[in-house]
Amino acid sequence: MPYVTVKMLEGRTDEQKQELCKRVTEAVSETTGAPLGNVHVIIEEMKKSDHSVGGIRSSDK
Amino acid sequence: MPYVTVKMLEGRTDEQKQELCKRVTEAVSETTGAPLGNVHVIIEEMKKSDHSVGGIRSSDK
Amino acid sequence: MPYVTVKMLEGRTDEQKQELCKRVTEAVSETTGAPLGNVHVIIEEMKKSDHSVGGIRSSDK
Amino acid sequence: MPYVTVKMLEGRTDEQKQELCKRVTEAVSETTGAPLGNVHVIIEEMKKSDHSVGGIRSSDK
Amino acid sequence: MPYVTVKMLEGRTDEQKQELCKRVTEAVSETTGAPLGNVHVIIEEMKKSDHSVGGIRSSDK
Amino acid sequence: MPYVTVKMLEGRTDEQKQELCKRVTEAVSETTGAPLGNVHVIIEEMKKSDHSVGGIRSSDK
Repeated sequence: MPYVTVKMLEGRTDEQKQELCKRVTEAVSETTGAPLGNVHVIIEEMKKSDHSVGGIRSSDK
Repeated sequence: MPYVTVKMLEGRTDEQKQELCKRVTEAVSETTGAPLGNVHVIIEEMKKSDHSVGGIRSSDK
Repeated sequence: MPYVTVKMLEGRTDEQKQELCKRVTEAVSETTGAPLGNVHVIIEEMKKSDHSVGGIRSSDK
Repeated sequence: MPYVTVKMLEGRTDEQKQELCKRVTEAVSETTGAPLGNVHVIIEEMKKSDHSVGGIRSSDK
Repeated sequence: MPYVTVKMLEGRTDEQKQELCKRVTEAVSETTGAPLGNVHVIIEEMKKSDHSVGGIRSSDK
Repeated sequence: MPYVTVKMLEGRTDEQKQELCKRVTEAVSETTGAPLGNVHVIIEEMKKSDHSVGGIRSSDK
């Protein structure tokens, strides 16, 4: 704890995911005081067909 | 914002998903006053083997 | 099932919440074919101090 | 209602998932008083590349 | 990890919550093989006015 | 999009929350390539009585 969930469209590289977990963990630890080892990050990828803004799906743009 | 997540069993067609995003966005905008463009919808599909009610999985019925 | 979660800033009236649950339930049922009675809606209210877009919190605007 | 979500790394067998839903449902019903039939359980599997603790991903260990 | 979230209507006693965390942790550990110490449980309480089934809120029944 | 949720125990100051939103937004934008303005962050605070690790609640330690 803290637990961080990042929901984003699929398509990032493995390196981007690796760096995302590292940098988000540092950001949370440095601003909340939680030890690095206590910060859990979960990435949840979305398909374009399963995401919309303003009623229009990312896959329909 | 508002952010809407719809968790449902997998199996709907692409057209159903398209219509779902549109209609849910309208329903949220019209009842909360949030502009259409501010409403985000995310669909999360579940496998039957990963969902249960009363301890019995959808895949075991 | 389906399960719908609506995250939005606090401040809507009880009537707005009542109408939101009704209209979202209808939208989901009519587009996915799920019976009305199977649609669960959960409203999660956010404080302005706990929500940001572009790194700027709603409470700091 | 209650609604239970279990996020865990992918890789469990179908039997483990079946038993997990059953046992978690019983645990929730017996401690909260909610009827068994009202307890909904959703399993969400994570890839090792999408999960980190302390900034290090499960796939990088 | 695993991470368990239990969403339920507010109103349970502190003892019920204590027992819920214990029993759910045991159920998850014993069925998935995850060590007890790795199981995280989060309780999220809902107001009756923020929850509906079939379009009718728990507070309107 | 991306959407980031940070679940943590209650008790941080308003300044900590402000800095958390800023730093997490930067971390996500810089590693995923998503424009800063597209990154949404939601903080969800937990009570000690509603969180456990290894079956023992934070409030019972």
